[in-house]
Amino acid sequence: MTAFFLHPQGICETTEVGEGTRIWAFAHVLPGARIGRDCNICDGVFIENGVTIGDAVTVKSGVQLWAGVTLGERVFIGPNVSFTNDKFPRSKQYPSVYSRTTVGDGASIGANATILPGITIGIGAMVGAGAVVTRDVPSRAIVVGNPGGVVGYAGAVEVDASRDTLPEDYGASLVRLAPHVEPRGRLFVANDGVVPFTPKRFFLVDKVPNGQTRGNHAHQSSQQFFVAVSGQIVIAVDDGRRAYAITLSHPGIGVYLPPRIWSMQCGHSDDAALLVLASDAYNKPGYISDYREFCSISSRAA
Amino acid sequence: MTAFFLHPQGICETTEVGEGTRIWAFAHVLPGARIGRDCNICDGVFIENGVTIGDAVTVKSGVQLWAGVTLGERVFIGPNVSFTNDKFPRSKQYPSVYSRTTVGDGASIGANATILPGITIGIGAMVGAGAVVTRDVPSRAIVVGNPGGVVGYAGAVEVDASRDTLPEDYGASLVRLAPHVEPRGRLFVANDGVVPFTPKRFFLVDKVPNGQTRGNHAHQSSQQFFVAVSGQIVIAVDDGRRAYAITLSHPGIGVYLPPRIWSMQCGHSDDAALLVLASDAYNKPGYISDYREFCSISSRAA
Amino acid sequence: MTAFFLHPQGICETTEVGEGTRIWAFAHVLPGARIGRDCNICDGVFIENGVTIGDAVTVKSGVQLWAGVTLGERVFIGPNVSFTNDKFPRSKQYPSVYSRTTVGDGASIGANATILPGITIGIGAMVGAGAVVTRDVPSRAIVVGNPGGVVGYAGAVEVDASRDTLPEDYGASLVRLAPHVEPRGRLFVANDGVVPFTPKRFFLVDKVPNGQTRGNHAHQSSQQFFVAVSGQIVIAVDDGRRAYAITLSHPGIGVYLPPRIWSMQCGHSDDAALLVLASDAYNKPGYISDYREFCSISSRAA
Amino acid sequence: MTAFFLHPQGICETTEVGEGTRIWAFAHVLPGARIGRDCNICDGVFIENGVTIGDAVTVKSGVQLWAGVTLGERVFIGPNVSFTNDKFPRSKQYPSVYSRTTVGDGASIGANATILPGITIGIGAMVGAGAVVTRDVPSRAIVVGNPGGVVGYAGAVEVDASRDTLPEDYGASLVRLAPHVEPRGRLFVANDGVVPFTPKRFFLVDKVPNGQTRGNHAHQSSQQFFVAVSGQIVIAVDDGRRAYAITLSHPGIGVYLPPRIWSMQCGHSDDAALLVLASDAYNKPGYISDYREFCSISSRAA
Amino acid sequence: MTAFFLHPQGICETTEVGEGTRIWAFAHVLPGARIGRDCNICDGVFIENGVTIGDAVTVKSGVQLWAGVTLGERVFIGPNVSFTNDKFPRSKQYPSVYSRTTVGDGASIGANATILPGITIGIGAMVGAGAVVTRDVPSRAIVVGNPGGVVGYAGAVEVDASRDTLPEDYGASLVRLAPHVEPRGRLFVANDGVVPFTPKRFFLVDKVPNGQTRGNHAHQSSQQFFVAVSGQIVIAVDDGRRAYAITLSHPGIGVYLPPRIWSMQCGHSDDAALLVLASDAYNKPGYISDYREFCSISSRAA
Amino acid sequence: MTAFFLHPQGICETTEVGEGTRIWAFAHVLPGARIGRDCNICDGVFIENGVTIGDAVTVKSGVQLWAGVTLGERVFIGPNVSFTNDKFPRSKQYPSVYSRTTVGDGASIGANATILPGITIGIGAMVGAGAVVTRDVPSRAIVVGNPGGVVGYAGAVEVDASRDTLPEDYGASLVRLAPHVEPRGRLFVANDGVVPFTPKRFFLVDKVPNGQTRGNHAHQSSQQFFVAVSGQIVIAVDDGRRAYAITLSHPGIGVYLPPRIWSMQCGHSDDAALLVLASDAYNKPGYISDYREFCSISSRAA
Repeated sequence: MTAFFLHPQGICETTEVGEGTRIWAFAHVLPGARIGRDCNICDGVFIENGVTIGDAVTVKSGVQLWAGVTLGERVFIGPNVSFTNDKFPRSKQYPSVYSRTTVGDGASIGANATILPGITIGIGAMVGAGAVVTRDVPSRAIVVGNPGGVVGYAGAVEVDASRDTLPEDYGASLVRLAPHVEPRGRLFVANDGVVPFTPKRFFLVDKVPNGQTRGNHAHQSSQQFFVAVSGQIVIAVDDGRRAYAITLSHPGIGVYLPPRIWSMQCGHSDDAALLVLASDAYNKPGYISDYREFCSISSRAA
Repeated sequence: MTAFFLHPQGICETTEVGEGTRIWAFAHVLPGARIGRDCNICDGVFIENGVTIGDAVTVKSGVQLWAGVTLGERVFIGPNVSFTNDKFPRSKQYPSVYSRTTVGDGASIGANATILPGITIGIGAMVGAGAVVTRDVPSRAIVVGNPGGVVGYAGAVEVDASRDTLPEDYGASLVRLAPHVEPRGRLFVANDGVVPFTPKRFFLVDKVPNGQTRGNHAHQSSQQFFVAVSGQIVIAVDDGRRAYAITLSHPGIGVYLPPRIWSMQCGHSDDAALLVLASDAYNKPGYISDYREFCSISSRAA
Repeated sequence: MTAFFLHPQGICETTEVGEGTRIWAFAHVLPGARIGRDCNICDGVFIENGVTIGDAVTVKSGVQLWAGVTLGERVFIGPNVSFTNDKFPRSKQYPSVYSRTTVGDGASIGANATILPGITIGIGAMVGAGAVVTRDVPSRAIVVGNPGGVVGYAGAVEVDASRDTLPEDYGASLVRLAPHVEPRGRLFVANDGVVPFTPKRFFLVDKVPNGQTRGNHAHQSSQQFFVAVSGQIVIAVDDGRRAYAITLSHPGIGVYLPPRIWSMQCGHSDDAALLVLASDAYNKPGYISDYREFCSISSRAA
Repeated sequence: MTAFFLHPQGICETTEVGEGTRIWAFAHVLPGARIGRDCNICDGVFIENGVTIGDAVTVKSGVQLWAGVTLGERVFIGPNVSFTNDKFPRSKQYPSVYSRTTVGDGASIGANATILPGITIGIGAMVGAGAVVTRDVPSRAIVVGNPGGVVGYAGAVEVDASRDTLPEDYGASLVRLAPHVEPRGRLFVANDGVVPFTPKRFFLVDKVPNGQTRGNHAHQSSQQFFVAVSGQIVIAVDDGRRAYAITLSHPGIGVYLPPRIWSMQCGHSDDAALLVLASDAYNKPGYISDYREFCSISSRAA
Repeated sequence: MTAFFLHPQGICETTEVGEGTRIWAFAHVLPGARIGRDCNICDGVFIENGVTIGDAVTVKSGVQLWAGVTLGERVFIGPNVSFTNDKFPRSKQYPSVYSRTTVGDGASIGANATILPGITIGIGAMVGAGAVVTRDVPSRAIVVGNPGGVVGYAGAVEVDASRDTLPEDYGASLVRLAPHVEPRGRLFVANDGVVPFTPKRFFLVDKVPNGQTRGNHAHQSSQQFFVAVSGQIVIAVDDGRRAYAITLSHPGIGVYLPPRIWSMQCGHSDDAALLVLASDAYNKPGYISDYREFCSISSRAA
Repeated sequence: MTAFFLHPQGICETTEVGEGTRIWAFAHVLPGARIGRDCNICDGVFIENGVTIGDAVTVKSGVQLWAGVTLGERVFIGPNVSFTNDKFPRSKQYPSVYSRTTVGDGASIGANATILPGITIGIGAMVGAGAVVTRDVPSRAIVVGNPGGVVGYAGAVEVDASRDTLPEDYGASLVRLAPHVEPRGRLFVANDGVVPFTPKRFFLVDKVPNGQTRGNHAHQSSQQFFVAVSGQIVIAVDDGRRAYAITLSHPGIGVYLPPRIWSMQCGHSDDAALLVLASDAYNKPGYISDYREFCSISSRAA
């Protein structure tokens, strides 16, 4: 048993509590729960057996952690956040297996949010206060609303592509196509050289519901070029050090994405259609889809 | 006084607690509250005087039950659910009568839901996690969102009428009208015999706000025939044993409803218009509007 | 050869011209054309062989009647009206058979209208000045625009069903359904007796392009009841003596149609859907689809 | 130290508690918190140091008040309401300054509402149950939904300007402009004298997101005239004694606002555009933007 | 009888033909028609008795002028133009009075246009080739399409107010309002002095069907200020020497109109709403509604 | 002077008439006009000096050909077709130069059509009856309506790309991209090799007004790939022997266009956006923009 603080009016029935952790008044930890080091378990928190909590986690008042909840390191759980583990609860009817909820390292869940059963919340994600989370949350995604939808990328600088630029020393860049407005219509031309690679394939994405995301990966060696051919889309780009959330709302502006830049697309308007040109044929091993692995690669590269 | 369990750090000031009920730490039950048998009152729950709770009820942590709340049997109240009893609360101003909230037998209220004052929640209803309930909830209705709207019928199998059928041995049935598509427009004909009764009256329903329901009754002897003449509508049908939630989105498909099938309509699109043909003149006594009574009739009939 | 007038600077190469007919200057009638009595063939008109013209017809200046054109009695052809007889004309390429154009008794074609090949224009129809007629025109229909669409029924009194009534002694009538407007939506009920027959079948009509018509017949014995369940529709009714063009734009108003009333539907808005209840099973011989026959039946009945 | 009630199972570590205040079971007040007189601090409430609470305040169960929260007099905080003080919380990362939340005198916050960081809630405001408050709330505004939007003005009588009038003895008034409906369009004329002042300037407001408000001030001497030139807008007017929430949905109706009437605009439809005529040039000192000051001026004037 | 030219194969039965007029082959003028000096009546034209034609008029081939048609001076009638004088023509049925058509001085009617019965076409108007004119045409209005709608002002320079200016020495002028774009919406302020007069009244115009016009007058002494508060509108201004057709499509731009500038509004988009501020109370005698009178006043003033 | 037929009541003042040509009654040809061989000039046609007509041309009754009109070989001019040569005609005002109208070889103009000044009508084009032509007409384009818009390609087989295919031996082909329909949206991927060339540039075309065309050329060596990324577009393709009008209405289908296939795009829906990938950098000399030259190249190639 390690050295941790227990308020005289708190109850702790487990021995698996890390050093430096504090458990406050009217909190109640059941036997079998495992809590890491340097955590802060505030007044009135209730923790069931079968819960695992990493180091340096904060759990504010009014929170219950049910069997099946796993919190990574440095997770923040705001006051009155509600977890669940049964999709269709009925009194005295118990599912054979409870749904599991996992919150990734460094993620935060804002006050009074509700997490539906079976959700995984990615590394560094930010769930807004009062949100009702009904779908998995990608790494670093910001979720708000009821039902919760993704509205941004945590830590990203916002860039309006119709007005702003990216820093010159950043890997990704914005490319502007000259508009030709004629009586017969509007024309955008990207002559040879405008896109800094020879496209090997392209794809089109449309009908993405607002609040949903796509992408959430980087490429080992492939380059990409994004154009919002209709509507509005946010392209989040992240090189492991700096991140930008680029709003594209004009078919005459493209985003160039070199290898080893993580990207997430979100904020699609109803009429959004995204054209993506890629420098290479499809190559599944070339995808980096684990954000933790991406961070380790990008820090080695730096 | 019956035999029930009280955690040493719980407070129970009433004697009206049923056998087998457990009251956990930091819970507080005031004098005058009445709690049934085999209930589970979790950590930190607060129950005022004037509250009545049926048998086999579960109340999860972080819930307060105010004077005026009545819970039926086998009710499930998720964590941090909030009840209210004053529509326009002001500090130190007390309404002459507090609003009453009633939760029907077998109903469940998901985590962190909010129940506005004066609401009745029907038998077997399911309030989704995080929902804010602003209107009465029909029996077996599923409610989600803020404000809460009905999106389904608990326990019903989903049927897309444009693709699926109902079982042949089920009382209600789908009827398909052959479409005649011509340059001059589209025509659906229901010749004599297609509808299995001679209609005595018909009615049209439109402009139903999304999230609202209609119906919520069965008929003793009247038969009905439903057609979504424009837009999309969900027709839930329930014979007391099996229930189906039928999505109608095409004017060429009708639902035939024999007597003694309970029905609820929900999921109306903005442009939804429902035509109902009925086999009999209006007859108020022929309505079965109490779901409990319907269940008892349908089980006798079986 | 009969007694007709030929202007000294007109040319008439046929002998088949009825008594009392006048042919004016610079008109040119080819051999083989047949012209009825009391016609007026104005300056500059050109009439090919193979044309048949009834009695009491007026053809204004600047009109050419090509082989294949047949005009009934009392037809009016305005100035510069253009007929055609080849759908895809190319110089020096001749179709094996020329398209035929028929204009019914009493019909009028306004100045400068264009009639595409192969068109039949019904009895008493009215083609507006400058219209381009691309489809057959029902009896008494009024056509305007390019392309021409039906906008009314010649000689009908306009009735706005949301405000006006039909005369009490008229066979067809308007039936108003009491609306029940509730927070849960809007309901119109037609209880037993409101519709003056027991419906044997019903049909729904939607997606009728604006400018198109449906109906254009009467029934020997069947009764009908029309409701515009969504959008707006014009129901023209005609008992052979009086005609009304009833605009329906509200689902709470129905048109009752007894036997032997001719009806045409037109003026469909994009979202128009028409419900028709019928008193009898489908019976093809019971249709009166020839307006001339209808007039003879209705005048016998009167 | 004053005479206040502390439940035996409550914890109170401050001495700054006013007379008549009650602190109930499992509540926990930290040292340094200041609580006024006649307050009610219910079961399970947690109050940090640095919190200031006025007199006659009610805090229901399941509420935490963090450092930086200030409640005025007669404030009502419903059960499970969640406050916050860090906009982008991360575990073990502490902002140099916590955001401050201020709740004005007489305001109420409904059950389970969530208040984002740094929010000021105005005097007499009413936050609905389950609302997620993301913006400052003007005095007497009623807020509901997620995200919270303003839907009304607390205590105001609802006036539909297309049907109702204001009392004759009230300062503000409705002015109707005669419509001229012609085949060529619709015309509204406000001849000289219709507006009871000579406009010195005008402004147009459009594209106000639904749920937002404008105004929230009175003028010392300037008069104004409001017309909803398109769409629908609610104009709340308040003379300090009586308040009206006027729905304008027709360009032919104006609201005349004399000096010293407080006004808030809300409920803008997507296409709403508001024209405001003003009797004076812009004059910043003439604005009364503090509702408390307005109340004191209007009561002196009465 | 005056000296005019008649082609040997033309027929002229009237003596009322002005000096210098030429009548060409296959043309036919009936007795009683009156034709001015220096006219050109081309091949195949037919002119009935009761027609009056001013001086210096051109009538191209294939045109018929029916009884009731009056052409002013310097009128141009293109080839195959069709006039009418019976709204609902039926063969052998003659209206008691034929509709009259008047074409103002200097107006032109393009090739193959159709003029419905009873139309007045204003001074200097321009009817486009192929147009079907169903309504009176204001002075100098340009009409195209089927049905014909006004699309411009003959002889006006086109001005896009969002980009162009008016000449500095012109009476009317454009006034730009600075936009304030804020999170709470968009605001345009016209402080004291921006509008160069003190408005005595204002009016709003909306729901003008596209193709219709308003205005078509000048004021003796009143000044006006136009703002398109929503949608797009064309404001034609004309000082008798120079004319501009100003497209307004932004609520931040106004048109100032001094006295004695003729104005016509046209080209309204579906959502167009026009705000007009006026310097004076309504004063009917101050209107100059006759374009001929306006020209005489403006030339005296110059 | 050659041997041609002149009706005794026709007038021909030119000597430049080809052998086998017939000129009918009331027709009038001025000196200086030039008419080819085997033409048919019908009753009442008027031809000015300065007109040039190719061989084997048909001009139906009621047509005038003004100075500046040139008709190619095998042209068909329907009855009452109106030509023009002055954009803004005013009586007694003569433009310094009249607009010229050119009708290409094999083109047809339907009855009562109106051709505005300065128009060029391409080889093999088809102008529908009653159309008002306001813009140049590309080769083989089919034009209808007022104003006239392109609706098809004369002689092309209609292909619905969502259902039909092109013949395997045809140069152009349809390429289908596999759709990935997921809860997160719809994805179309064109992997390497799907497009049979490496794109050197791409362009996007949107906001093309309905009725307009683009393309109307072939390439000497460049290949192209068309995708309707939103909305619907018709791609006409023509190898000089067979032509297809391909309706694209789905972003998952592309049209591959090899060199030396002529293409015209038309039928754009309001929301149409066309993506074009091209195999080569822009190269003006590689364009074949003259349909006559294209036909000669394609027949040499065959």
